[in-house]
Amino acid sequence: MKKRLFTPGPTPVPENVMLRMAEPIIHHRNPEFREILERVHENLRYLFQTTRPAVVLSASGTGGMEAAITSCFRKGDKLITVNGGKFGERWGKLARTFTGNCVEETVEWGKAIQPERIVELLRKHPDARGVCLTHSETSTGTATDIRAISALVHEHSDALILVDGITAVGAHEFRFDDWGVDICITGSQKGLMMPPGLALVTVSERAQDIIEQNDAPQFYLSLKKALDSHEKNDTPFTPAVSLVIGLDESLRMIREEGLTNVWRRHERLAAACREGCEALGMQLFSDSPSFAVTTVWLPENVDWDAFNASLKHNNGITVAAGQDEYKGRIFRISHLGYYDELDMLTVIGGIERSLKEVGYEFEAGTGVAALQRALLET
Amino acid sequence: MKKRLFTPGPTPVPENVMLRMAEPIIHHRNPEFREILERVHENLRYLFQTTRPAVVLSASGTGGMEAAITSCFRKGDKLITVNGGKFGERWGKLARTFTGNCVEETVEWGKAIQPERIVELLRKHPDARGVCLTHSETSTGTATDIRAISALVHEHSDALILVDGITAVGAHEFRFDDWGVDICITGSQKGLMMPPGLALVTVSERAQDIIEQNDAPQFYLSLKKALDSHEKNDTPFTPAVSLVIGLDESLRMIREEGLTNVWRRHERLAAACREGCEALGMQLFSDSPSFAVTTVWLPENVDWDAFNASLKHNNGITVAAGQDEYKGRIFRISHLGYYDELDMLTVIGGIERSLKEVGYEFEAGTGVAALQRALLET
Repeated sequence: MKKRLFTPGPTPVPENVMLRMAEPIIHHRNPEFREILERVHENLRYLFQTTRPAVVLSASGTGGMEAAITSCFRKGDKLITVNGGKFGERWGKLARTFTGNCVEETVEWGKAIQPERIVELLRKHPDARGVCLTHSETSTGTATDIRAISALVHEHSDALILVDGITAVGAHEFRFDDWGVDICITGSQKGLMMPPGLALVTVSERAQDIIEQNDAPQFYLSLKKALDSHEKNDTPFTPAVSLVIGLDESLRMIREEGLTNVWRRHERLAAACREGCEALGMQLFSDSPSFAVTTVWLPENVDWDAFNASLKHNNGITVAAGQDEYKGRIFRISHLGYYDELDMLTVIGGIERSLKEVGYEFEAGTGVAALQRALLET
Repeated sequence: MKKRLFTPGPTPVPENVMLRMAEPIIHHRNPEFREILERVHENLRYLFQTTRPAVVLSASGTGGMEAAITSCFRKGDKLITVNGGKFGERWGKLARTFTGNCVEETVEWGKAIQPERIVELLRKHPDARGVCLTHSETSTGTATDIRAISALVHEHSDALILVDGITAVGAHEFRFDDWGVDICITGSQKGLMMPPGLALVTVSERAQDIIEQNDAPQFYLSLKKALDSHEKNDTPFTPAVSLVIGLDESLRMIREEGLTNVWRRHERLAAACREGCEALGMQLFSDSPSFAVTTVWLPENVDWDAFNASLKHNNGITVAAGQDEYKGRIFRISHLGYYDELDMLTVIGGIERSLKEVGYEFEAGTGVAALQRALLET
């Protein structure tokens, strides 16, 4: 059976990226690899919309988040984190682990924090050294208005703005320089259409100044070391060579398509996916839906395990389950990375087939027709 | 021109491993991936010769070393490190960064520390909590007698024994359980014949007890988290899925060949490579040569840049240069991982060709003949 992956990381890897990664391995201190890394660095700047360096860490996205926290802050530094799902929660865990001083703002799952609430928090905590945000919260499919929050933070505070852009970069409009973000992290297995294993981190000038002064203990995930090596198109430690070579190819594809086209594609796929789901009578989970992943409530009387088994085993489709207390109640459909409009027809079509199989009542074709209308008539 | 890599990491990746990694990506929380990870865990225990867990970190070998230090120790813990090259030096840097209390024993490059010297150090520092060793020092091609040192440490101290086995595991005999090692780290791009990007770490029972109690700040590289997930054949963070799948294949190959055969192959390749080099009038650099990499002095009057350019551009061969003060004076030939006896003929043959090209005087065929004798008559 053909297998189709609709999870928000890992996401499908294009054939040409897989083929590049299957080429014979080269040495990372060779001029050939340095040339690749130079091009990767250049194209990452394009991806993040920045003139600042973007470094490549051989680690998952969480490694990139830890790198940001341990590089910018030291024990005792107060950080404001926003927890509206599993990944916002992770900022809090990292902050508590490494600075031990975390103001964690909890937001109901499926809702985005209001920018004004950040101002209240900054007023209450004028000594905050950093604000840690999640652009697209993968566990809930919720997007946060980073542009607006960033502008307000700059108005009211000198705190650094750290953005987990792991499932947002390459899906949502993101402009590191224009928006005044200080650190943004993404991962290879998301909008970058790659296998997991690399974290990409960009750093503003004022963040770099702080990083240069920081004496908090760190080594492998040190952004200072990574930035020093970046200047020479090098990495401080042996990089995941084959993944960097694959990234070179996937960044070339993004550049070829054009970043604004990539963003627009994700916005269209997300909108169409929502239409398809709603036409099938499934409620959207999020008030502020991400363009990377669409989260919907499972219809009442539909058993998650039966539905998911049918999707997987009868239709070859993998979607993502709900997490924590939403396990079995919501599910998540990814359109992040290497997806096109016909892929959306496939996933909504597959969902229709499995909903029928588990006895949910609806008129066959309702979902795919709504999807087609959304795609063809807008 | 055909390209041939003779560097001690990255090392060549077998075609079947590359093909496995080029298969469509799967999700890391799927039963299919868990099955792969279970098999990887099982085969890593075989590789390390242990019944203890061996965890997979998505990081380079240095990330594995940092994981060991930050998981086992806390600020102030005294560590003895042995610095006989770039990687022994790294233990010292990590110890100073994270515990701030490091007794660094410097050993001349190319020499191995004498086991008795460790006893003296332990007598002088009875409060040492750990001894950090390098099994095969890649920068000098020197092997250290881990078995003997480990036995002596156990006799004289309760200090944990941490072994950087990054270029040793899969090349040198190594028996984690029998030798009483507490932590051993290896990397994917070494004896495991994989691209870089994974660190593999095994942990003794007494090390795990210490890890469970340790409250030193750590997150992404936490062995506690990794061990907790290991029990469920899971990883705490998204693993580098394609690399884990490749590792499954390369471990299968090692198991098929048989570990003692793999060790014996490396020992034979190393011995033959040394014979070939010496027959060409090149002196061995190390008193205690590693089976992973052979380091030799460049003959007098041979210019490194010219010789290396000829190797690379005219013969397609990449060897490793000397590092630090030995740059341009020594070079290193890897036989670590996916190499066989005919590969040794290729590298010594290529070296002969390039030595001729740069005007070094010797009788053509001397090196390859000596190599053949060593291989066929022993």
